Amino acid sequence: MISKAKVKFIKSLQLKKYRSEEQCFAVEGEKSVVELLRSDFDLRWLAGTSSFLEAHGTLLGNRKIETVETTASELAQVGTFQTNDGAIAIASIKPNVPLKVGDEFSLLLDDIRDPGNLGTIIRTADWYGIKKIIASEETADFYNPKVIHATMGSFCRVQIFYTSLLQYLSYISQPVYGAFLDGDDVHKIEFTKSGLLVIGNEAQGISRDVAKKVNRRITIPKRGGAESLNASVATAIILDNVFR
Amino acid sequence: MISKAKVKFIKSLQLKKYRSEEQCFAVEGEKSVVELLRSDFDLRWLAGTSSFLEAHGTLLGNRKIETVETTASELAQVGTFQTNDGAIAIASIKPNVPLKVGDEFSLLLDDIRDPGNLGTIIRTADWYGIKKIIASEETADFYNPKVIHATMGSFCRVQIFYTSLLQYLSYISQPVYGAFLDGDDVHKIEFTKSGLLVIGNEAQGISRDVAKKVNRRITIPKRGGAESLNASVATAIILDNVFR
Repeated sequence: MISKAKVKFIKSLQLKKYRSEEQCFAVEGEKSVVELLRSDFDLRWLAGTSSFLEAHGTLLGNRKIETVETTASELAQVGTFQTNDGAIAIASIKPNVPLKVGDEFSLLLDDIRDPGNLGTIIRTADWYGIKKIIASEETADFYNPKVIHATMGSFCRVQIFYTSLLQYLSYISQPVYGAFLDGDDVHKIEFTKSGLLVIGNEAQGISRDVAKKVNRRITIPKRGGAESLNASVATAIILDNVFR
Repeated sequence: MISKAKVKFIKSLQLKKYRSEEQCFAVEGEKSVVELLRSDFDLRWLAGTSSFLEAHGTLLGNRKIETVETTASELAQVGTFQTNDGAIAIASIKPNVPLKVGDEFSLLLDDIRDPGNLGTIIRTADWYGIKKIIASEETADFYNPKVIHATMGSFCRVQIFYTSLLQYLSYISQPVYGAFLDGDDVHKIEFTKSGLLVIGNEAQGISRDVAKKVNRRITIPKRGGAESLNASVATAIILDNVFR
């Protein structure tokens, strides 16, 4: 059983305020916890079902962390999601260190507010081998349980740096791509090997000041009636064109 | 103000059981309600803020439906979402009529369970001009408020037919595409003008029996570490390749 103090602690980490105070976050579900155990994140402690603890004994042994045996129903009660198939782990937040972009393609998020969208964008970035994401300070928190969940483990392989995008962009010499209604057809562009792709807010798109820094305007051709695409969907379509 | 009876009625429609009994569903938010007013859905009644009722007077006049004046805070209280910028409307569910696919591209959903994914798939289908979706009976309900919300109005332009996929596929002569790990590179395929694209369940992928009916196996090339892509993201990437 998970102690009352630990239950209270896990629940508090659903809020950014407490994650910041404690400098840690929760990871839920077998797949995500296994990826966490294999990553370079510092772990505090872990609660798992007996079958989880047994199946991943070696991995846990290497980590030498405190483990608590629990049940799937208790895991679901203490966690953010309706079900949890194996474990919950508490890990340390990484410091918000500036990320330099070099000879590679990276993402720049201009106020992505929905945690599900952010998580899906991180997962898609990881699929295409992108390792660095620069995010505005208004972007959803990387360590929000819904973000972590939606990344399906990719939070272990993609780094994020929260900063003022305008300031960041003032140091950038690489091409800066962004999607607009009046850009060049994404199917006809020769993407450069290194560059940044700006993804705009779900409702407002790319903000006016950031838009001024975009020097390669692109458009995803539309055939039907929808006014726009979901932010994570648009990201995926553009990345597939960048890396094809 | 919205009467207590109407509030109770709206809230009941969050559950599929009551939507089926009453054969109606709720649409929330200005943009979605405006699209609904312009569509061929039958409307029962609508609650809107004074500014919504004023701004869309002509549209409402054409529809001749009962309207109730309310406030944004009351709308948020009765609805599914934390905010609502203008209106909530109750409309009739369309009958589940078989959809024939002809000389066009359509989607076939094999147990898409997450309402957000289903809504995003409908929105993306609409962007690419797809008008028909065939869904397994285990797929999330089209009229779930979270699905309607995620479609961003595209629920008015895309039709769905819930049925047994295996039975449906036994009548199909068009090519049936599906994504697998061992398929042909989606970037190198010449897609046919008419065809069906099968989208598999979020966790299980395409089910075994349905997979046997897929005669064009495709793969989205991966460069990084993620094991898989979100279902709505994979749909979007494939559709962009179908229609490019």
